[in-house]
Amino acid sequence: MKKSCVVIGAGAGIGGAVGKKFAAEGYHVALCRRSDADGLSEMVGTLRANGGSASGHLLNAVEDDALEDLLLEVEAIAPVDTVVYNLGAQIGNRSLEETPLKTFELGWKMACLGLFRVARVVVPLMVARGHGTILVTSATAAVRGNSGQHSHAAAMAGRRMLCQTLNAEYAAQGLHVVHIVIDGAVDAPDTLGKMLGPERFEALRRTKGGEKDGLLLPEKIAETYFHLAQQHRSVWTHELDLRSYSDTPWWNHEINI
Amino acid sequence: MKKSCVVIGAGAGIGGAVGKKFAAEGYHVALCRRSDADGLSEMVGTLRANGGSASGHLLNAVEDDALEDLLLEVEAIAPVDTVVYNLGAQIGNRSLEETPLKTFELGWKMACLGLFRVARVVVPLMVARGHGTILVTSATAAVRGNSGQHSHAAAMAGRRMLCQTLNAEYAAQGLHVVHIVIDGAVDAPDTLGKMLGPERFEALRRTKGGEKDGLLLPEKIAETYFHLAQQHRSVWTHELDLRSYSDTPWWNHEINI
Amino acid sequence: MKKSCVVIGAGAGIGGAVGKKFAAEGYHVALCRRSDADGLSEMVGTLRANGGSASGHLLNAVEDDALEDLLLEVEAIAPVDTVVYNLGAQIGNRSLEETPLKTFELGWKMACLGLFRVARVVVPLMVARGHGTILVTSATAAVRGNSGQHSHAAAMAGRRMLCQTLNAEYAAQGLHVVHIVIDGAVDAPDTLGKMLGPERFEALRRTKGGEKDGLLLPEKIAETYFHLAQQHRSVWTHELDLRSYSDTPWWNHEINI
Amino acid sequence: MKKSCVVIGAGAGIGGAVGKKFAAEGYHVALCRRSDADGLSEMVGTLRANGGSASGHLLNAVEDDALEDLLLEVEAIAPVDTVVYNLGAQIGNRSLEETPLKTFELGWKMACLGLFRVARVVVPLMVARGHGTILVTSATAAVRGNSGQHSHAAAMAGRRMLCQTLNAEYAAQGLHVVHIVIDGAVDAPDTLGKMLGPERFEALRRTKGGEKDGLLLPEKIAETYFHLAQQHRSVWTHELDLRSYSDTPWWNHEINI
Repeated sequence: MKKSCVVIGAGAGIGGAVGKKFAAEGYHVALCRRSDADGLSEMVGTLRANGGSASGHLLNAVEDDALEDLLLEVEAIAPVDTVVYNLGAQIGNRSLEETPLKTFELGWKMACLGLFRVARVVVPLMVARGHGTILVTSATAAVRGNSGQHSHAAAMAGRRMLCQTLNAEYAAQGLHVVHIVIDGAVDAPDTLGKMLGPERFEALRRTKGGEKDGLLLPEKIAETYFHLAQQHRSVWTHELDLRSYSDTPWWNHEINI
Repeated sequence: MKKSCVVIGAGAGIGGAVGKKFAAEGYHVALCRRSDADGLSEMVGTLRANGGSASGHLLNAVEDDALEDLLLEVEAIAPVDTVVYNLGAQIGNRSLEETPLKTFELGWKMACLGLFRVARVVVPLMVARGHGTILVTSATAAVRGNSGQHSHAAAMAGRRMLCQTLNAEYAAQGLHVVHIVIDGAVDAPDTLGKMLGPERFEALRRTKGGEKDGLLLPEKIAETYFHLAQQHRSVWTHELDLRSYSDTPWWNHEINI
Repeated sequence: MKKSCVVIGAGAGIGGAVGKKFAAEGYHVALCRRSDADGLSEMVGTLRANGGSASGHLLNAVEDDALEDLLLEVEAIAPVDTVVYNLGAQIGNRSLEETPLKTFELGWKMACLGLFRVARVVVPLMVARGHGTILVTSATAAVRGNSGQHSHAAAMAGRRMLCQTLNAEYAAQGLHVVHIVIDGAVDAPDTLGKMLGPERFEALRRTKGGEKDGLLLPEKIAETYFHLAQQHRSVWTHELDLRSYSDTPWWNHEINI
Repeated sequence: MKKSCVVIGAGAGIGGAVGKKFAAEGYHVALCRRSDADGLSEMVGTLRANGGSASGHLLNAVEDDALEDLLLEVEAIAPVDTVVYNLGAQIGNRSLEETPLKTFELGWKMACLGLFRVARVVVPLMVARGHGTILVTSATAAVRGNSGQHSHAAAMAGRRMLCQTLNAEYAAQGLHVVHIVIDGAVDAPDTLGKMLGPERFEALRRTKGGEKDGLLLPEKIAETYFHLAQQHRSVWTHELDLRSYSDTPWWNHEINI
C-alpha cells in the first residue's frame, strides 16, 4: 500500500519541491497550504501529470483543529509515513516596539505550537507502526538570536527543542525527527519573494542567484530531505545545516581583531 | 536616588535569596509572586528588618497587563535598574499525551512570552537611562530537549533565544541581559519541593543536600547574580552555567563505548 | 577522466564501506591504512572484482611526509576529488595519570595535525579545480569532553574547529568540508573490535547489533557519505550527526530532577 | 597558611591584572612569563609594595619540564590553590599556506598541551586537598573556526574540550575548572599590542578604548576571575563569556536577508 507524505507549507519553494520529489519516488503526497486554491490545484495537477499521487488541502494552521483534521484526513487516504513541517515564521526584522504581543504569539503558533499539535496526532500512529519520519525545516534563528528577530528566534528555538524532546522520547520506537537548519536565503518566490517584495527579490536573484548558486535551490534541498527520510535506522541524522557554498555560516563574521 | 530590582518569581528559592542580596546591597527590592500573601509579607518584613527597602506584589504573570502594570508600579517607587526574571515553567516529566495544548501554551506564557512582555516595558526605560540589567534564570531544558520535557524545553529555548535577540539589539545601548543556566536541582521548597512533594524533596535533601552541597544553594546563587549585575560594561557575561560540583553537566553521561 | 576518492583509514568499518560505495559509483578509490598488507590487497581485489578502480596504500600517517607523498601519488593516478579523513584517535577511557604526554601528542597527530597536513596538500589542488570534498569522520568527543577522554576529546575538538576554519576560508572557492559526528558504536571489527577485544565486541554485537540495528552499520553510513559528496553547491551541509535510532544522543541522559 | 595562585602568562593584560587582584585578596601570587625579567621584577615589586606576597618566574612553557618544575617550585612556596592558565596562541590571521606545520604545532603546545601538562601536575595535588581551581582564559576561536584561524581555532578548541574532560573527571573531587571565553579585544599592550604593532593598537584604543569601554579592561576581567574562584561548590560555573557591551557576540553578524 502507498504511504503518504504530508507537506505542511507547500508553496513554490522547499515545500513544493520536496512534495514533487516524494511523489516521484512513489509516496502519496498531501500538499497543504493556507491560500491560493488555484496554485495548489496546479501543483497537484503537475504531480499527477508526472505519474504521481497527490492531493491538495487548504488549511489555516493556526485555527483550532485544522492541523489535526488534516492529518486524519490524509491518514485515511494513505498512512502518514512522513511529515514535512515547513511552516515559516519569519516576519522580517522588527524592533521590539514593532513586535506586538499578537505577532509574537502568531510566530510561536506557526513555528512551535503547530509542530506540537502535529506530533500529538501523528506520533502515536507512527509509533504504532514502528516507523515514521518528521522532517522539520528550520532556520538560523533556531540556533542564535539576532537583532530584530525577537519573534522568529524565540519561536524557532522552541521548534528546535521540540524536535529534541520528540527524538528523546520516541526515536527508539521508530520515530525519526530531523531538524534541518536552512542557513541562508532560499530561491523561493512564495516566501522570501513575498517578504522582500518583487523588486528586492529580483535584485537578490541577480546578485546571488542563477548560475551563481548563492541562493539555496529548493529542488536540491529536496534531494537531501529525501535522503534523510531513507536513512537506515542504524544511522539516523537528527540535525544538519544546509547553506550555499558561497554563504558565510551563521557562526562566522568579520574577525574580532 | 535608590534604584530598584524587581524579582519576578520570588519564592523561598533563587528569587527570595537574590532579593535579599540586592536589598542588602542597597537596592529597593520589589518581590513579586503569584500567591501566599502572608509569605510575601514575611519576606518583605525580613528585608526591611535587615535595613533594606522592599515591597511585595502579588501577580498572576499570565494575566493581561499584570506584568506591565507591576513594572510601572515599581518604576514609580524607584527606577527599575535590574529585573530578575525567575518564573519557572517546569511541570515535571510529561509524555506527549499527558501534555495538553493548554499546558504547552501555559509553559510558553510563563517561560517566554512573559519575558518578552517584561522587555517591552523595561527596555525602553533602561535604554533611555543608558543602563539596565535583566538577569534571566534558565534551565538545562533551554539548551537541550529531553524525554517528557516537551513543554518545558520548547518554552525555555524560546526564553534563551529571546535573551540573545535582546542582547543583539540593545547591549550597545546599555542593556545587560544574562541567560543563567541552572543545571541541577536547587534547594528550593517553593518550586522543587512543590513539584516533588514533601517526601521526595526531603529524601533528595538527605541524599544530596546539607553538607554534601549537591543541591544548588539559593543564597550562593545570589552571590553570582549580584556579581553579574555589577560587571563593568567592558566585560559583560551573556551566558553561564551554574551547577553543584558533584553533579554531572548536561552534556555528560555514561560514555558511548 | 576518472576522479579519485582517497580513504585515509580504510579498515573493515566506515573507511572500507565508504571506499566500496565510491568505487561502485565510478570513482577511483585509494584505500590507505597503516598495516595488514594482505587485508588491504583483498579489499582492493574486491573493489576491482566488482568492476571498480582501486589502489591500496600502506602508510603510517604520523610519519613525516607520509600523508603528503600519498596524496601526490594518488593525484598522479586520478585527480583527488574527495578525501575521506577517517583516522580514529580513540584509545578507550584513560585517566589523567594513564595518559602520558606521548599518548596525548599521538592522539593530536592522528586526529588533528593529520587533517591539517592533508588540507595543505589537497586544498590548493581542489581550489585550482574549483571543486573538492573533504569528508571528516568525527566523534562525540569533538563536541563534548568526558571523563577519561582527555586525549580523544582535545584532539577531536581540534579536528572539528579545523573543519570550520577550512570551510570559512575555502568554501566559496569550491571546497566542501563536512564534519560528521558519529555518535555511537560502529559495527567495525578493525577499530571498535580491536579496542574492546573479541569477547566484549561479540557481546556488544549480541546486545545491540544484528537485527537490533543498535550499532551503526558501515555500509549504511557510506550511503550518507556519498550523498554529502553529491550535494549541489547551493545546498551544502557542513555538520551533521549519525546515530542508531535506539541510542541516546550525547546531549541526553537521565533527567536532572 | 597562605595558598598560592599561579598565573601562567602574566603580562600587562589579563594575567597581570588577575595576579594583582589575587595578591590583594591574600594569595601568594606566582607570576610566570616567558621573557622580560625587568618587567617581571617590576610587577612583583608592585604587588609586594601593595602588601601582597608574590614571586616572579621566567619560563618557556613549551620546553620539556618547564611547566612541571615551575609548579612544584611554587607548591613549595605555598600550596597551589588556583592556576590561571593564560597563555595565548593567537598569531593573527594566517592563510593555510602561511601556516607551517611548526606554527600549527606551536599553537597546540601553547594552547592545549601546556594545559594538559599543568593538569597532570596540579590536579593530583588539588584532589588530595579536596579543592583547587583552574581558571582558563580562552578565546572565541575555541567555539568557532574562522578564516585564517587554522592554528588558533584547532588549538583553542582542544583547550576547551580539555577543560570539559577535567571537569567530568575531577569536579566531584573538588576541582573547579572554568573555561572563560574572552570574546573581543582586550586592552593589553603585551599581547594584542604586540600582535597589532604600536600604531594599529593605538588606533584601536582611540576608536574603541578609553571611555568608550569597547576594549575589555583587564582589571575588570580580574573581578570576574576572582568571583569564579570564590564560588561556593554548590554553584560552580564551568563556562562563561566576557565581552564589551558594544561588541557583537561571535554568533551574531549582519542578518541573512
